[in-house]
Amino acid sequence: KQELIICASLVDKIPNLAGLARTSEIFAAKSLVIPDLSVTKMDNFKSISVGAADWINIEEVKIEQLLSWLLKKKAEGYWIVGLEQTSSSSPLHEINIPTFAQNNNKTVLLLGKEKEGIPVQFLQTVDTCIEIPQFGMIRSLNVHVSGAITIWELTRKTRL
Amino acid sequence: KQELIICASLVDKIPNLAGLARTSEIFAAKSLVIPDLSVTKMDNFKSISVGAADWINIEEVKIEQLLSWLLKKKAEGYWIVGLEQTSSSSPLHEINIPTFAQNNNKTVLLLGKEKEGIPVQFLQTVDTCIEIPQFGMIRSLNVHVSGAITIWELTRKTRL
Repeated sequence: KQELIICASLVDKIPNLAGLARTSEIFAAKSLVIPDLSVTKMDNFKSISVGAADWINIEEVKIEQLLSWLLKKKAEGYWIVGLEQTSSSSPLHEINIPTFAQNNNKTVLLLGKEKEGIPVQFLQTVDTCIEIPQFGMIRSLNVHVSGAITIWELTRKTRL
Repeated sequence: KQELIICASLVDKIPNLAGLARTSEIFAAKSLVIPDLSVTKMDNFKSISVGAADWINIEEVKIEQLLSWLLKKKAEGYWIVGLEQTSSSSPLHEINIPTFAQNNNKTVLLLGKEKEGIPVQFLQTVDTCIEIPQFGMIRSLNVHVSGAITIWELTRKTRL
């Protein structure tokens, strides 16, 4: 298990949450945080996640609680990373994982809303913003896919 | 544009094909190959791909034509990479991209069927098999997600 927590409290759509459960389990994340635990009982969550909820710790943090949850994790020594295109975001291939987070990947990866990304009040609490370099004409990658690429890159850099 | 061709002729499900169109467009792939062009007209393809089909070249290669198409690409100087867990697969973080494919990423990435992966008759034509290291209890990553992680890694190594 990694000390990596995937925070999807801002993610709405069940296929994205279920896909993130599958991907997070496969990369041995410590837990997945979602806005509503009851979605894990729904049929399409179960089929898309291929039963991942049986093997990964899934926690509920509603949007109203997210700010205080992030501050708590920060106080516990987690590196808080936001996946968001901002004027000061680091490109994913150039990120420097701070020493305190390197050994155990003690990291919270905060994902944004499907359309609007990460609202500004949450951006103020993150330690680093990361963006995935993109070369196309259409709008950004799907949130599950961009989360998966970032989980891979953090795993590659700390464990492989 | 990269010279990278994403071959999804073995992929069945429309959300996966549409997702691959979105991701392939964003990473400026040369083209996406799918088993049936008519799916690009369907409403769920259009919504999941967020209009990517307007910006990326999508070609049709049916499964019956796939073997001869792969051999043709090989003859044209493409590096044929299969994404599949086999006894001789290279882990994604250890792949060596051959010199002839490095400059322009002249590569065909062959993805497998959702359940069975890449059938053996196609595995015989690939130059290299790649697998993504996985640490969980459940079965492998979704084909769109594993394709996206591999596209990222090839892009990172050749362009970034």
